[in-house]
Amino acid sequence: MATVKNWPPTGGVVNLGSSVFARSMRDQGANVYEVEWRPPARGKQELIRALDALGGREDIDEANRVALERYSSAQPVLVGIGRARDVVPGFRDRMLLHAGPPITWERMSGPLRGAVIGAIMYEGWAGSAGEAEEVAAGGEVAFSPCHEHSAVGPMAGVVSPSMPVFIIENRAAGNRSYCTLNEGLGKVLRYGAYSPEVLARLRWMADGLAPVLAKGIELSRGIDLKSIIAQALHMGDEVHNRNRAATSLFIRAIAPYLIDTGYPLSDIRRVLEFINGNDHFFLNLSMPAAKAMLEAAHGIPKSTMVTVMSRNGTDFGIKVSGLGDRWFTGPAQKVKGLYFPGFGDDDANPDIGDSSITETAGLGGFAMAAAIPIVQFVGGTPEDAVGFSRRMYSITLSENRFFSIPVLGFRGTPTGIDLRKVVETGILPQINTGIAHKDPGIGQVGAGLVTPPWECFEKALLAFAERYA
Amino acid sequence: MATVKNWPPTGGVVNLGSSVFARSMRDQGANVYEVEWRPPARGKQELIRALDALGGREDIDEANRVALERYSSAQPVLVGIGRARDVVPGFRDRMLLHAGPPITWERMSGPLRGAVIGAIMYEGWAGSAGEAEEVAAGGEVAFSPCHEHSAVGPMAGVVSPSMPVFIIENRAAGNRSYCTLNEGLGKVLRYGAYSPEVLARLRWMADGLAPVLAKGIELSRGIDLKSIIAQALHMGDEVHNRNRAATSLFIRAIAPYLIDTGYPLSDIRRVLEFINGNDHFFLNLSMPAAKAMLEAAHGIPKSTMVTVMSRNGTDFGIKVSGLGDRWFTGPAQKVKGLYFPGFGDDDANPDIGDSSITETAGLGGFAMAAAIPIVQFVGGTPEDAVGFSRRMYSITLSENRFFSIPVLGFRGTPTGIDLRKVVETGILPQINTGIAHKDPGIGQVGAGLVTPPWECFEKALLAFAERYA
Repeated sequence: MATVKNWPPTGGVVNLGSSVFARSMRDQGANVYEVEWRPPARGKQELIRALDALGGREDIDEANRVALERYSSAQPVLVGIGRARDVVPGFRDRMLLHAGPPITWERMSGPLRGAVIGAIMYEGWAGSAGEAEEVAAGGEVAFSPCHEHSAVGPMAGVVSPSMPVFIIENRAAGNRSYCTLNEGLGKVLRYGAYSPEVLARLRWMADGLAPVLAKGIELSRGIDLKSIIAQALHMGDEVHNRNRAATSLFIRAIAPYLIDTGYPLSDIRRVLEFINGNDHFFLNLSMPAAKAMLEAAHGIPKSTMVTVMSRNGTDFGIKVSGLGDRWFTGPAQKVKGLYFPGFGDDDANPDIGDSSITETAGLGGFAMAAAIPIVQFVGGTPEDAVGFSRRMYSITLSENRFFSIPVLGFRGTPTGIDLRKVVETGILPQINTGIAHKDPGIGQVGAGLVTPPWECFEKALLAFAERYA
Repeated sequence: MATVKNWPPTGGVVNLGSSVFARSMRDQGANVYEVEWRPPARGKQELIRALDALGGREDIDEANRVALERYSSAQPVLVGIGRARDVVPGFRDRMLLHAGPPITWERMSGPLRGAVIGAIMYEGWAGSAGEAEEVAAGGEVAFSPCHEHSAVGPMAGVVSPSMPVFIIENRAAGNRSYCTLNEGLGKVLRYGAYSPEVLARLRWMADGLAPVLAKGIELSRGIDLKSIIAQALHMGDEVHNRNRAATSLFIRAIAPYLIDTGYPLSDIRRVLEFINGNDHFFLNLSMPAAKAMLEAAHGIPKSTMVTVMSRNGTDFGIKVSGLGDRWFTGPAQKVKGLYFPGFGDDDANPDIGDSSITETAGLGGFAMAAAIPIVQFVGGTPEDAVGFSRRMYSITLSENRFFSIPVLGFRGTPTGIDLRKVVETGILPQINTGIAHKDPGIGQVGAGLVTPPWECFEKALLAFAERYA
């Protein structure tokens, strides 16, 4: 992987790799051309051998074509809302779903603990935060990753049995995915807050918001999420940390049906105002849409396509289409970002949430060039936003057939992370994300940019080579 | 005005202006640097003398600062809907307003004639198109430009006495502006169609749409249009030929109030669906918002700021802040664009409509870099869209304080056309626009790019010099 500055040289010295020599040559008046060079697979012999064994393999390429085609032909449609315990597969009583790979209470980060405490109180399994911690630590509650139930959740991603969840159906393959409804900004459960106002809002969402919205969705006969996402990418969203356009388009799609629900007008008005007051409302639809598309691409033997990237605030985990249910994990990384007034790096929890399913689907950080205004929220410059998208073409299988980036001449978003390309180039997927406070009970403190830990991809590649080389 | 290619020269020949010599030098193996040079004021001595007399004039600069400040501090708010004859100043019975500078029936282009025929039938002044033509030609109907009544209208821009109009108030200065409600795409009056379905839609707009929307606006206590426009520019709109985001944001703003209007739910639902079905709905709000802002900047003695650019399909006319009510006109130009299937250049009417008020206000073609997806509608490439905006900084007084362009690093849109700079540089304002069929009764056939005729600016500059030099 080589990037060249000031190319082509027309007389002078070419420097490969470290800039130390270049600087010294330049000090002596030489015309120096620098080649930013990295050894493949970060120079690790074991990985280079694995890549050699997996390179030029027509069967792997064919498996990736199949996986990508299943992703590309998916048609994620919002078809309803149900109670988690009634509709999410494998849910059972006294179970809580959470973001990221599997984790025990002991290893959970602050914001995930906060959300677990809140969910336990919300379900009435404990009357106070202290009691809830005892319940959580006592082994009475089963913790399970959302991703093991075709579900996704932003930030802590906690889903408890009686919470309402969106039901998304991939009308091409029939698979379904699930996600809670977005609570808005400020003090919210997904960022680890659990104050009485947080729980009261969750109760209204179950009793006031969900029934009206569910009826509206039923009357609509399904809302096409893929079309909304495609349009939103031409309207400044990347549908991870910027969802203003997609939320607006969703309101346009659902509002006429809400009027026909038969609910009292004051209820309908409150629903509209709640959605209208939260530009991130669509995040909890873009995520399960991405999940529905990617789950269709999962489980193709020999495919190196990454189908899950996810974090629980302690670990980052990925799954690979050809490697089944196995998680490959590494430590969740520090987010580089912009903080709300009064907060800084020391307050930040490491990277958390299932929302990196958007990047896995060629959206979010991969589509940042479509959403330049996002740099005002996550940091960086317009050039950075464009650069992130461009860079991701080096590690992906294809350019998206549906989702395109106007500023790149309507080029399809970089889509389908190829495990081999990540390891070969050493380029990690670019994710943008919210930042949670590291302590339970506080909430969001900022937003920024982050990458997965290298270890996930290293481990996955070795496992892939072991199985298929 | 000089643009340099391959600058700086490091040995070779510099060629100024015509490429003929450059080519011949290059053929002889010389290293040629070309300077794209145009003589100031297109080389006309009369204009150069006028520019010399008006250049470096502190009093003119100060007048422009005042005009620009009035524009910048304007707060256009949608405050209501009324019947044109009741609310538009100077309206009287048997009067029709139209787009562009003044024009007689005899000189009207096909689409304007078509809209006049339709409006006469709509008002019941004639029972057929043939009768309507007789009425129009018979001198019984007074024709008056929208712009002489603080109003604006897209394309033909015909306003008849009983049509409902939006009322926009500039809450900073108190002035008001007016515009009809957008009919949607396809066969519509503003493009010169007048079939029974066109007239039936207009009747429902007056009897069904306007009352519900008027009540919603009243309950909202006013919708801030400036804020919607500023957001829409970060969402892929330039609010002339792309209004999808602004229309979505308007729906978000008004929908909760519509529910409280007390009208039957089926009426409210139809209103929502009508607006939802027309991404250009906001055009008839961006235009009067621009008008309200620019009218506040009009009438400042010694200001060279252009406050009106407008076309009636035959003539293009401009007004200048320091030159009062006088129009400066030239022939409306051919639009270069993309045609709907089955139509081509031969079908196109010349440039028509008041919608270039958006460009006059630093939006539309001036903000095209904010709306790259628009090139799919009006033609050109993403690079063109960015180039148009960049170029307009050469002829404007300032960078907008409120409206900014993400892809240009959030630079304010080029705002406040300076008559002197247009003449000096020879660069004409860039407008994007719909294309009407040249015959009455047909409608839209495409969309594209156009500039005003040079004559308007030449005449205005000479008049300005005569008055103020």
